[in-house]
Amino acid sequence: MSKRKRPPRTARGRINAPRPTGTSTRGGGKAASHTPHGHALWLYGIHAVSAALANPARRRHRVIATKQGAEALQGAVAGQDIATLNIENVDRAEIDSVCGPDSVHQGIAMLTDPLPDIHVEDVIAAGDGPDTLVVLDQASDPRNIGAVMRSARAFGARAVIVQDRNAPPETGSMAKAASGALEHVSLVRVTNLARAIWTLKDAGYWCLGLDGHADTDIGDVDPTPRRVIVLGAEGAGLRRLTRETCDQLIKIPMDSAQESLNLSNAAAIALYVLTRG
Amino acid sequence: MSKRKRPPRTARGRINAPRPTGTSTRGGGKAASHTPHGHALWLYGIHAVSAALANPARRRHRVIATKQGAEALQGAVAGQDIATLNIENVDRAEIDSVCGPDSVHQGIAMLTDPLPDIHVEDVIAAGDGPDTLVVLDQASDPRNIGAVMRSARAFGARAVIVQDRNAPPETGSMAKAASGALEHVSLVRVTNLARAIWTLKDAGYWCLGLDGHADTDIGDVDPTPRRVIVLGAEGAGLRRLTRETCDQLIKIPMDSAQESLNLSNAAAIALYVLTRG
Repeated sequence: MSKRKRPPRTARGRINAPRPTGTSTRGGGKAASHTPHGHALWLYGIHAVSAALANPARRRHRVIATKQGAEALQGAVAGQDIATLNIENVDRAEIDSVCGPDSVHQGIAMLTDPLPDIHVEDVIAAGDGPDTLVVLDQASDPRNIGAVMRSARAFGARAVIVQDRNAPPETGSMAKAASGALEHVSLVRVTNLARAIWTLKDAGYWCLGLDGHADTDIGDVDPTPRRVIVLGAEGAGLRRLTRETCDQLIKIPMDSAQESLNLSNAAAIALYVLTRG
Repeated sequence: MSKRKRPPRTARGRINAPRPTGTSTRGGGKAASHTPHGHALWLYGIHAVSAALANPARRRHRVIATKQGAEALQGAVAGQDIATLNIENVDRAEIDSVCGPDSVHQGIAMLTDPLPDIHVEDVIAAGDGPDTLVVLDQASDPRNIGAVMRSARAFGARAVIVQDRNAPPETGSMAKAASGALEHVSLVRVTNLARAIWTLKDAGYWCLGLDGHADTDIGDVDPTPRRVIVLGAEGAGLRRLTRETCDQLIKIPMDSAQESLNLSNAAAIALYVLTRG
C-alpha cells in the first residue's frame, strides 16, 4: 500500500463525519460481505460477447449466433478461431427470445455465469500506486451502471462499487452498455456503502463525493494519487451518511437551470477530469 | 453575426476539405430543409412534463396522472396551480398502456404535438456572442439524443443538430432522457449534415470533430467563442465527409484498451471541457 498522501484538509468542502462505531474493517473485517448472484445470464452484442470470451474467469455455457453474428464475432476476435467455441447457429428470433426483443444483440449471445464475487479488500490489495475507483450510491439502472463501467475502463478506473440492496445483478443489458468493460472493471457489491468508503479511506484513498451544492469545482481539486469518485442517484443525490463519509465534496459546475446530469454522464466527466495529469 | 475569430490554422489536426460545389447556404438557401414530424406523442415523467407545461411553444392535448403523479407535478411546478390543467385522474396501468410498460413515467403523462421545426439558420440568427452547438452524425437512439440534450443544457449549448434520415422523431423516451431539456435546447433536423456544418462555418463557428484517431487532445484546444462539437455514431465514428468538413479533429484521451465511450458520455465530456473558461 502506498504511503497515505492526502491534500491539506481545509474547511472548504471538507467533511468531518463521525466515524461509525464498531465498523472497523481492519484485521479481516468484511466491509464487503454480500449475497451470491449465481444465476446464469445471457450476454449479448459483439463487444460484450467477444470480451467475455477473452476473459478466463468467465464460464461459458452456450454461444448462439446468426450467420452474420458469427462472422462479426470472428472479426472481433481476430487471431482466435471461433470454430472451437461450438457456436450454435440460430435465427434472429431465437436470440430475441432469450435476450428480449428490444435488445440490440447484433446476432450473438452467450449463456454464462456471473463473474465471481469480489470484495473491496480484494480491490485494495490488487491496487498499487495511483488508482481510481468509483462508488455509486443507490444506482439501480443496469444500463447506467454498465455505461459507468465503460467510462471507468476508458479512464483507467479499476472498480465500480455498488450497494448490494439497490443495485441489479449482472445482466445482459448492463454488459451491453459496458461494451466489454464488465470483463475488466470489477463490479463490487457491498452491504454497507459508508463502511466500504471507510475501508477505502483507511487504505489511503481520498474519497470525493459529487454534490451539486458543494463549494469546490471539480476542476479545482488537488490531484491525489489514489482517489474514489462517489456519485449518488439522479435527483436524490448522495444520501446523508454517504455524503458525510466522503473526504471532500465537489461539484461539476453547470447552468443552474438544468439541475442535474445523467448519472453516467456525470461519472464520465468526473473520471475524465480527475484522472488527468 | 459576430466577427469571425478562428484560432491559427496549423497542419496539426486541421482538415482542409474541398467545399462541396453547389451547396452554398448563403442568400436564403436552406441547409435545413426537412420533412415535418407532426404526429402527436406522449411525454412522461415529472421533469419532462413540468418543463413541457412551462413551454409556451408546446401545445397540450391531454394530461393524465395518478393521484401521486399529480401531487409530484404540483411540487415541481411550484407557483402554478395545476387545477387549471384539467388533469385526468387515471390509474397506473392506463399510463403504462400509452407510454409503454417499461417507461419510468412517475405517474404522469402529457399528450402533445412535437415542437415546431427549426432550421440551422434560425439557430444562427438567435445566437449572438459566445455560443456552443452540438452536431450528432448518425445518432439513432432516442435516449442517447435525449441525454445529449440534457448535457447540452447543463453546459449552455443551445442546439443539437441531427440528420433527418437517421434520427428518430421526438419521442417520450427522448424527452424523458432529456429531463426537461427538450423544451430549452433546439433539436434541429437537417437533410445534409455536411452542408449544415458549412453553414455554421460560414457563420463564424469553429467546428470540432471528435475522432479517436485525432492528434490533438480535447484539453489542448484553443478556446473559441463560437464552436460546434461534432460527434459520430458509436463504433463507426464520424463519416468521412463529416470528418473532412470539420475545422479541426480532436480526441478525448483514454485507455487504448477501451475503444470508445458511450455517445452521450463523450458528448458530456466534450461539452464540459469546451465550455469552460
